[in-house]
Amino acid sequence: MEARRAVRLAPEARRAQLVEIGVRLVSERSFDTVSVDDVAREADISRGLLFHYFPTKRDFQVAVAEAAVEELLAAVTPPSHLPADQQIHAGLEAFIDYVAARRDAFLSLVRGAGGEPSLRAVVDDAHDTIADVVLHNLRDVLGVAPSGLLRTVVHGWIAFIEEATVRWLTQEGGSRATLLAVLEQVSLDAVAAVQRHEDVAASPAVGTG
Amino acid sequence: MEARRAVRLAPEARRAQLVEIGVRLVSERSFDTVSVDDVAREADISRGLLFHYFPTKRDFQVAVAEAAVEELLAAVTPPSHLPADQQIHAGLEAFIDYVAARRDAFLSLVRGAGGEPSLRAVVDDAHDTIADVVLHNLRDVLGVAPSGLLRTVVHGWIAFIEEATVRWLTQEGGSRATLLAVLEQVSLDAVAAVQRHEDVAASPAVGTG
Repeated sequence: MEARRAVRLAPEARRAQLVEIGVRLVSERSFDTVSVDDVAREADISRGLLFHYFPTKRDFQVAVAEAAVEELLAAVTPPSHLPADQQIHAGLEAFIDYVAARRDAFLSLVRGAGGEPSLRAVVDDAHDTIADVVLHNLRDVLGVAPSGLLRTVVHGWIAFIEEATVRWLTQEGGSRATLLAVLEQVSLDAVAAVQRHEDVAASPAVGTG
Repeated sequence: MEARRAVRLAPEARRAQLVEIGVRLVSERSFDTVSVDDVAREADISRGLLFHYFPTKRDFQVAVAEAAVEELLAAVTPPSHLPADQQIHAGLEAFIDYVAARRDAFLSLVRGAGGEPSLRAVVDDAHDTIADVVLHNLRDVLGVAPSGLLRTVVHGWIAFIEEATVRWLTQEGGSRATLLAVLEQVSLDAVAAVQRHEDVAASPAVGTG
């Protein structure tokens, strides 16, 4: 029998493997407690080799945060052919379930990122991406033209959903079903509010990304 | 004629004077650029005497932030005898005008506080205080009983208003009148949404203070 040896991987495959292990480990605990040693051990490589791919622990954390956000976005983006209300329902339900299953990671990223500019940038980029998707769908599904103020309202809505979910996860305020129902109602109302204010749609467009 | 000399003040009066100067200076520029030297010069005291009252620059910044938040809360809290819709209108209008007149200070506090736990705590306390006032008024004016989920929704609403206002100040997305109209509509809708979900009000109360 062969002795167990570290499997040789091409650089890109190794990098992807390390990030994937990081995302898996981070889903089980607070974001900043992911240990580079644990990741290296799981990948069966030395700590030194990990630092060959990611010069600092912060670089590794940012790569893991980016991959986790990408996974979240894929999970919460509803099929674009659905009617608006079904998209909202499906997206919010997927979001609540995704972050509830990765509670500590989600909380440490949205609450803890403030002190770390590189992680804050990952969160800000995620908000921008979500806003792009929402503005795109508002135009395609409901015919609402993108505008500066519409983007302002969409970012407000993202902040609402995120903050309410953080509070729900940390303060145990009520059932998942009720939270979902209220967030859905607030979202539908926000869409209706911007539709009613025609000058919102008519204000100068700032682009959708 | 007497030579100009530093006026002697009782310790509490001196402390209040320094904070008041700090709040005035911070309203004209970014929060973290308030210079202790400028404050001491305006008060006509030595830098050393200022540090006698506030051991570190951070201590002084926190005292100024707390005083600024108190001023903001006084400005945006509407008379409690008004009907709900008028309270919402008056509160939002006062909020937009207050922060628009102190743009850099507001932005540096809500955006920059994340990296500084003692300033973050001031912002978090302000959110809690606003939530208390809103929950109190929801009960008194509309008869909506406080609950964990209701507090969750109120904190989501606070995040919405704050984020939308930050975007409006930084991205120039539309007129003040349109922003105010949309925020007002979203707020009224949020109140209606929680009123419609009776189980929101029936979920276990977590207290309002």
